Amino acid sequence: MKRFNITKPDDAIREEIVCKINNLTKPKGALGRLEDIALQVAMIQQTTSPALKNPQHIVFAADHGIADEGVSLSPKEVTWQQTLHFLKGGGGVNFLCKQHGFALKVVDAGVDYDFPADSGVIDRKVRKGTANFLHGPAMTKTEMEQCLEHGAAIVRDSFNEGCNIVSFGEMGIGNTSPSSVWMSSFTGIPLEHCVGAGSGLDSEGVRRKYAILKKAMENYPGNNTPPDLISRFGGFEMVMAIGGMLQAAEQKMIILVDGFIMTNCILAASKLYPQVQDYAIFAHQGDETGHKRLLEHMKAEPLLNLGLRLGEGTGALCAYPIVDSAVRMINEMDSFQETRVTKYF
Amino acid sequence: MKRFNITKPDDAIREEIVCKINNLTKPKGALGRLEDIALQVAMIQQTTSPALKNPQHIVFAADHGIADEGVSLSPKEVTWQQTLHFLKGGGGVNFLCKQHGFALKVVDAGVDYDFPADSGVIDRKVRKGTANFLHGPAMTKTEMEQCLEHGAAIVRDSFNEGCNIVSFGEMGIGNTSPSSVWMSSFTGIPLEHCVGAGSGLDSEGVRRKYAILKKAMENYPGNNTPPDLISRFGGFEMVMAIGGMLQAAEQKMIILVDGFIMTNCILAASKLYPQVQDYAIFAHQGDETGHKRLLEHMKAEPLLNLGLRLGEGTGALCAYPIVDSAVRMINEMDSFQETRVTKYF
Repeated sequence: MKRFNITKPDDAIREEIVCKINNLTKPKGALGRLEDIALQVAMIQQTTSPALKNPQHIVFAADHGIADEGVSLSPKEVTWQQTLHFLKGGGGVNFLCKQHGFALKVVDAGVDYDFPADSGVIDRKVRKGTANFLHGPAMTKTEMEQCLEHGAAIVRDSFNEGCNIVSFGEMGIGNTSPSSVWMSSFTGIPLEHCVGAGSGLDSEGVRRKYAILKKAMENYPGNNTPPDLISRFGGFEMVMAIGGMLQAAEQKMIILVDGFIMTNCILAASKLYPQVQDYAIFAHQGDETGHKRLLEHMKAEPLLNLGLRLGEGTGALCAYPIVDSAVRMINEMDSFQETRVTKYF
Repeated sequence: MKRFNITKPDDAIREEIVCKINNLTKPKGALGRLEDIALQVAMIQQTTSPALKNPQHIVFAADHGIADEGVSLSPKEVTWQQTLHFLKGGGGVNFLCKQHGFALKVVDAGVDYDFPADSGVIDRKVRKGTANFLHGPAMTKTEMEQCLEHGAAIVRDSFNEGCNIVSFGEMGIGNTSPSSVWMSSFTGIPLEHCVGAGSGLDSEGVRRKYAILKKAMENYPGNNTPPDLISRFGGFEMVMAIGGMLQAAEQKMIILVDGFIMTNCILAASKLYPQVQDYAIFAHQGDETGHKRLLEHMKAEPLLNLGLRLGEGTGALCAYPIVDSAVRMINEMDSFQETRVTKYF
């Protein structure tokens, strides 16, 4: 299996960073989460003067065999339509990328559609959608490897383009289903707490979805190792995101984690390399059932709770200015030493 | 008393705005709070294509007689020192204004200090700090009027400078005390639920602060009308903020409401003109005891909860990009009519 070389940020510099933050002209701790994020970013970059450079947002798109079971209210064709829509610039993700200065990369990880040659999509199509995991593995081990390699290569390109902060989004009708199964399998949280409405199922629909996913878990004859669970239930876009996240951590980039699906991707990634989480900033707690519980399980404190449930990485993008604020705080605020302000509480 | 002409946004356009938001290429409601904010801003501006123009941040600074009772851990001199510090550009508020493109105005509403002529402060000093409201009114009715007039005039200038969104911040050691008394007096919530640690009191300090404020409320012989409560307990910076908020609402500007102190200012403003709240976006729920309860009382849902307790308006500024996102959403996202995307859920 593809190996990543991910190390924890060296703790030696922590004291110096904390000292700098505590000497800024404010009562200690008065800038709350900005102080936490400044510390994390400075630790990742191993400097007391961190910087965010050339942010990139990568959307992985793919289709899911499990969608054939009617687990989503939205028709499968929405995957390719929305993917094309992002490339044309009119989607939710587009105005946010523009607002926050993100370069957008849209990757066809396995959409059931032939994109026109001039669409601008990055073609890493593994296959036209995964197999239905109700009856067998969603993908082969070789396909999983391919996804990890592709995801990693795309992020390596981002790094070489001077990017040091990357956020991930997804487009894939049906992908809350594999996410729910991963969540339950990796955390031990009962499946019923992991299954939600996706893009808008009613309670009857949620019950049906739960029954199908429960059956799928019962039908799984595997060994419950992370690679086996990832390939059995995963989506191509999700496994590429895992590869991207692991590569980002290897290259000491900051990872902005979006909503329910991307949180499950970093959960899966952390089962392979626990240190990946040190590089992750959890951006948004979505409304999808199970997301709050999953974040708590990971001891993750998301920055925002805006009730977003669009996917595409919109939650991650909305949190970017807060990360930017944290970095500006540590660089631009004066210290008590530099000013005539009495140190106060 | 100074009159303001504040009307509710005309409801006739609501349907058209909601229809536009619901036809953007996303499941209905999938952009959560961005959709609420887009609706509110569009209603205020009475258009389906709202715009944010020349944002301004106004910090009002003043000292408080009640600080002599030891209700704050920070020495009073911090008020003028920090005010000067903002003018020099090294404070918390400065990097946020710079990040989000806000012009910053720093107003001396009543600081106990003579600022140098070239400091850049906007001099509206009523007096060098309020009187101690433990024993009598913090300010006279005439001084209250002056504050309302000054606050309104400064925002009128902002409006004339092309600004249509204004946020307010404060600097005034001791000002959680008048805020707590206003909160209890205007809402009926028992004072004990309204008093917190301010810039960092321990539990013994909070008990002492509570005892002093309870005594101050018992000593109050007044008639409990809003003007009487405002002048008895208020700070000059707080009453100027009220004048500013009311003027902003009169001119149909968007008001970004910061933390505990500014929430109490808009609470007081709403006791004079309830319609002012239609123009307010609540930015941040701070850690100060009572803030959550106060927001709930006002049926206000703040956008952020980042654990900020610095004041200065930092919470309001941190929320600005979300308001900007909402406006971009309604203007820049394609509708289902404009694209080939199947309407999905």
